[in-house]
Amino acid sequence: MQILLTIAYDGTNYSGWQKQDNAITVQEKVEDALSQLLNRVVVVQASSRTDAGVHALGQRASFFAEDLRVPLDKLPMVLVGLLPSDISVIAAKVVPDDFNPRFCTEYKTYAYNIYNAPSPNPLLNRYSAFIPQCLNIEAMKEAAQAFVGQYDFAAFCATGGSAKTTVRKIFSCTVEKQINGLVTITVTGNGFLYNMVRIIAGTIAYVGMGKILPQDIKSIIMSVDRTQAGKTMPPQGLVLIEVGYPIYWTNHP
Amino acid sequence: MQILLTIAYDGTNYSGWQKQDNAITVQEKVEDALSQLLNRVVVVQASSRTDAGVHALGQRASFFAEDLRVPLDKLPMVLVGLLPSDISVIAAKVVPDDFNPRFCTEYKTYAYNIYNAPSPNPLLNRYSAFIPQCLNIEAMKEAAQAFVGQYDFAAFCATGGSAKTTVRKIFSCTVEKQINGLVTITVTGNGFLYNMVRIIAGTIAYVGMGKILPQDIKSIIMSVDRTQAGKTMPPQGLVLIEVGYPIYWTNHP
Repeated sequence: MQILLTIAYDGTNYSGWQKQDNAITVQEKVEDALSQLLNRVVVVQASSRTDAGVHALGQRASFFAEDLRVPLDKLPMVLVGLLPSDISVIAAKVVPDDFNPRFCTEYKTYAYNIYNAPSPNPLLNRYSAFIPQCLNIEAMKEAAQAFVGQYDFAAFCATGGSAKTTVRKIFSCTVEKQINGLVTITVTGNGFLYNMVRIIAGTIAYVGMGKILPQDIKSIIMSVDRTQAGKTMPPQGLVLIEVGYPIYWTNHP
Repeated sequence: MQILLTIAYDGTNYSGWQKQDNAITVQEKVEDALSQLLNRVVVVQASSRTDAGVHALGQRASFFAEDLRVPLDKLPMVLVGLLPSDISVIAAKVVPDDFNPRFCTEYKTYAYNIYNAPSPNPLLNRYSAFIPQCLNIEAMKEAAQAFVGQYDFAAFCATGGSAKTTVRKIFSCTVEKQINGLVTITVTGNGFLYNMVRIIAGTIAYVGMGKILPQDIKSIIMSVDRTQAGKTMPPQGLVLIEVGYPIYWTNHP
């Protein structure tokens, strides 16, 4: 029996999702909690390898367990009790054995938060990048639209990624100014390259500052040249919001 | 020349606002930054002594400085540079010498945030209390209304306060469910007793859980008996939002 968890975390104190030697990771904490519960080694497979300092509200990870004695609807709160307070389990459901949380992904949604005000806000510091310069939101909205479509996004990919192709499809990209001063860039796509959302956010931020024009986005994409795009924004503004799967995978009886 | 600062902070790592021996406080950090800037001892007077773990977006504190060489409009960002990242200065303005940030207060607004969902949200943990039980928001709104008016709020006062009278006037008290799952209780009054907002929030939360009826609030107030009210909610849900002064104090030429 394969169980798919929906996991939320504050990434501030972790070296990202993926388990590694000599660093504390979210995966390790989740596996520790499951191992404690099942009294054996448990390995989980996640949908996304979020970077150090990046947050999640809807990470997905699965594991196999014929030996689970906790009722499925109680599993999230039992795991919350075994996890540190900066990691939470939101939901648990059974999925088919041949489901793979990474490769079955239909879409992923990320949000990038910028706090745009004259002084920093200590209550938002942990979850946003601070830009004091007044941003042109309308120009940012226009720039965001230009990312929608299927393109070679090599200009928006940091070196060090392992992807076979740099072609990705962006389904939507929007910019919203919230009443608390946050400017939220929300991107949904079929997949993202290494640092892609943070480079898209940095490029849209440059448009907000007047350093790049909205109508230049298409030619930056076409250039396939990383140096044409904006800078990579810092990790604390990024949140993995949702990972979507085709309904035939997750509506398992 | 007296200068009034508007200060925001994440109170998680502080033993409250007020300076004390053997504990790290926000006041100490603000005075350290000002002392560093002016190269002499600076003492500030604040509007509110927020408790350990309580946050602020609009704390006010003033100091006297004939020797300030930084232009007033640059002062906030200069102080931000001298302060730790969990404290920020939002604004600075000149006020009359006989203005007192504590005693001239016309109103104060506090918000209390409850995260109401089946599982905790690690991105809101630091700034809210978690209640998994589904809350009756309409009943909470009705209960909040009952706090509006001038009453003896002794039932909503923890022991240890130093107030001469327990009569206070509440101008407004509202409950709003936000789209991110936060339930925000916002209270504005001419002043608050020790732990008063956290006890009001705990009482309104009890109404949400069905442990107290909205129509019982008035008799709980009239009882002047602390044991009749709900429990004191934890500090991390509380934010000092705003301190208001009569316009003749703060519109100083």
